[in-house]
Amino acid sequence: MTAPASALALPPGSTIGILGGGQLGRMLAGAAAKLGLHTHIYAPDAESPAAAVSAAWTRANFDDEAALRRFAAAVDVVTYEFENVPAECARVLLASGVPVRPGAAALEASQDRVIEKEFLNQSGVATTAFAPITKLDDIAPALTRLGLPSVLKTRRFGYDGKGQVWIRSADQAEAAWKAIGRAPAILEAAAPFVMEVSIIAARGLDGAVRFYDLAHNRHENGILQESVAPALVDDAVVEAAQSAAEALLDRLDYVGVLAIEFFLMPDGRLLANEIAPRVHNSGHWTADACACGQFEQHIRAIAGWPLGDSRLPRKVTVRMSNLVGDAALDWPAIAADPRARLTLYGKRETRPGRKMGHVTRIKSANAESLE
Amino acid sequence: MTAPASALALPPGSTIGILGGGQLGRMLAGAAAKLGLHTHIYAPDAESPAAAVSAAWTRANFDDEAALRRFAAAVDVVTYEFENVPAECARVLLASGVPVRPGAAALEASQDRVIEKEFLNQSGVATTAFAPITKLDDIAPALTRLGLPSVLKTRRFGYDGKGQVWIRSADQAEAAWKAIGRAPAILEAAAPFVMEVSIIAARGLDGAVRFYDLAHNRHENGILQESVAPALVDDAVVEAAQSAAEALLDRLDYVGVLAIEFFLMPDGRLLANEIAPRVHNSGHWTADACACGQFEQHIRAIAGWPLGDSRLPRKVTVRMSNLVGDAALDWPAIAADPRARLTLYGKRETRPGRKMGHVTRIKSANAESLE
Repeated sequence: MTAPASALALPPGSTIGILGGGQLGRMLAGAAAKLGLHTHIYAPDAESPAAAVSAAWTRANFDDEAALRRFAAAVDVVTYEFENVPAECARVLLASGVPVRPGAAALEASQDRVIEKEFLNQSGVATTAFAPITKLDDIAPALTRLGLPSVLKTRRFGYDGKGQVWIRSADQAEAAWKAIGRAPAILEAAAPFVMEVSIIAARGLDGAVRFYDLAHNRHENGILQESVAPALVDDAVVEAAQSAAEALLDRLDYVGVLAIEFFLMPDGRLLANEIAPRVHNSGHWTADACACGQFEQHIRAIAGWPLGDSRLPRKVTVRMSNLVGDAALDWPAIAADPRARLTLYGKRETRPGRKMGHVTRIKSANAESLE
Repeated sequence: MTAPASALALPPGSTIGILGGGQLGRMLAGAAAKLGLHTHIYAPDAESPAAAVSAAWTRANFDDEAALRRFAAAVDVVTYEFENVPAECARVLLASGVPVRPGAAALEASQDRVIEKEFLNQSGVATTAFAPITKLDDIAPALTRLGLPSVLKTRRFGYDGKGQVWIRSADQAEAAWKAIGRAPAILEAAAPFVMEVSIIAARGLDGAVRFYDLAHNRHENGILQESVAPALVDDAVVEAAQSAAEALLDRLDYVGVLAIEFFLMPDGRLLANEIAPRVHNSGHWTADACACGQFEQHIRAIAGWPLGDSRLPRKVTVRMSNLVGDAALDWPAIAADPRARLTLYGKRETRPGRKMGHVTRIKSANAESLE
């Protein structure tokens, strides 16, 4: 933790193992390649945007112990592009002697919404009020305490608005419970926020910490549509986000990039909504706008390299728009826009709600020629 | 040639075939991936930096017609990272019905130093005086005409200063002829230049042309050490370089990125030294400093996409330094320098004179925070 990074660094030519084969893995693999590192993807899917840009791909399930052991033997460090890595999978990898970064504690703290919120609160990071729900009868008393509306979410495996239902009157409890499949759940009080923001932070193997500018996020139907950085908030809000991030990073003895989504409340308080122990959609702009974007930063951290420069140039504003579903069909117009930087994920099939790519637009008050 | 780019564009998900598997192919593959395109490398080598980041690799020789035909059937367009693609190889690919971009004319014009210089002169682009050398006895009269010193170069397969010898007195002719292996050669008059510069230009399938800023290049032992952009030259020099590039691009009905290296003479004239029908080492800075770098630009061109923004932001200076041989061992210090952007090529073995990576430093008069 306090050793100099260079002594522990994986040299160029080392191999980064990545659990998960989607677009985040793809962009991590691209960043690793820039640093002369190889990548080996572990993903069960028939198609993998990440494997298409990696030297090796183990196509196996996350409970295939033999495949996991072979994977562990073939790589120098393991990371992941999604937090729902089974605990047993991480255990097998660690038992094989390969470091997993960020570690098991980060996975544990982020896989289950109840454990996540308890961890946040214990770390001094405020969240909305919440109640664990294990059966239908838990909902009514929880609603009395949390008020209406509240949102019922499955404890595990939710993403992009999936596995969550709003309860706007007490008589909707049963339908909501049914809608989320009667799975172990959490009920969360509504947060009448003025803005959704997120911070991307990184911690190196040597304990060094870097922050990116806060992003102002806009969701539609639970899916991130747009992030604008820097978010137009008071310095105190930035400081609060940074100090929350630092507390979590240190408490988890974290190595890698961590994202925290917050609700900014009318009184200026931040309530943490979710943490992601990985690179995050709301940080995609960093790859186009910063010397060292979140993908390279994560690779640097897990490889034991010094962290890179996370600063956004002064007087620069970045807008990242997701291309969800058919929005990606606009690629010819985006490609023709000199102000747009386009990233597509190489997914064969366009489906409604599927993230197909994103586009970043950088505006500089310094250089008219870039406007 | 005048069709709208979008009508002819290869959609995301298409496959770019790349002849050659080195670092230029690697960076082209990375740029293609960003646009949602797949890459398939064709290279005979046991190790391939480009194949390590590509979905497919045909490991075969350039005279393996069956392998070339299978490759042609598997890709939507073919490009190359080096100009010494055998003419027969290009012929087999074209006969298989796959477009090769840039085309055969560009290969022909750049593979042989005599043909190259004749092509340049016929296109109105000045070069140093030269004479074809086919036997030892050709050298003495050529020296009389060109003066001393002159440089004797093999007509084909020279790169990074290989295959060339300076003749400083008439009695060195025989030793020089022996040193280059008595191969068909060219004798070139010395150009007492004040600066070596290069221009990277691109032409789209629709005939649109884009230029990057001129780079000021410094070579050591024939190997590029450093490029600084923009080169500090008069506007007239920039205009001359651009108009030479445009003449060559149009004459070749060129599609893709083209590089021209020039000698800037004391009287302000530019003498073209060499053309490269591909992305070029002296343009690596574009990938770190421009919205659309040379690698993405080349992929856009050959895929029939609109060309991207090639402008360097105002008041910005970029310095690209090659990491040749053991210089790459400095990677920990470079990685720790917040002003440095590091690219390593993933080559297993460090050898003297081998290009292992490069580092870019961007200086902005606008943003102190980036200095």
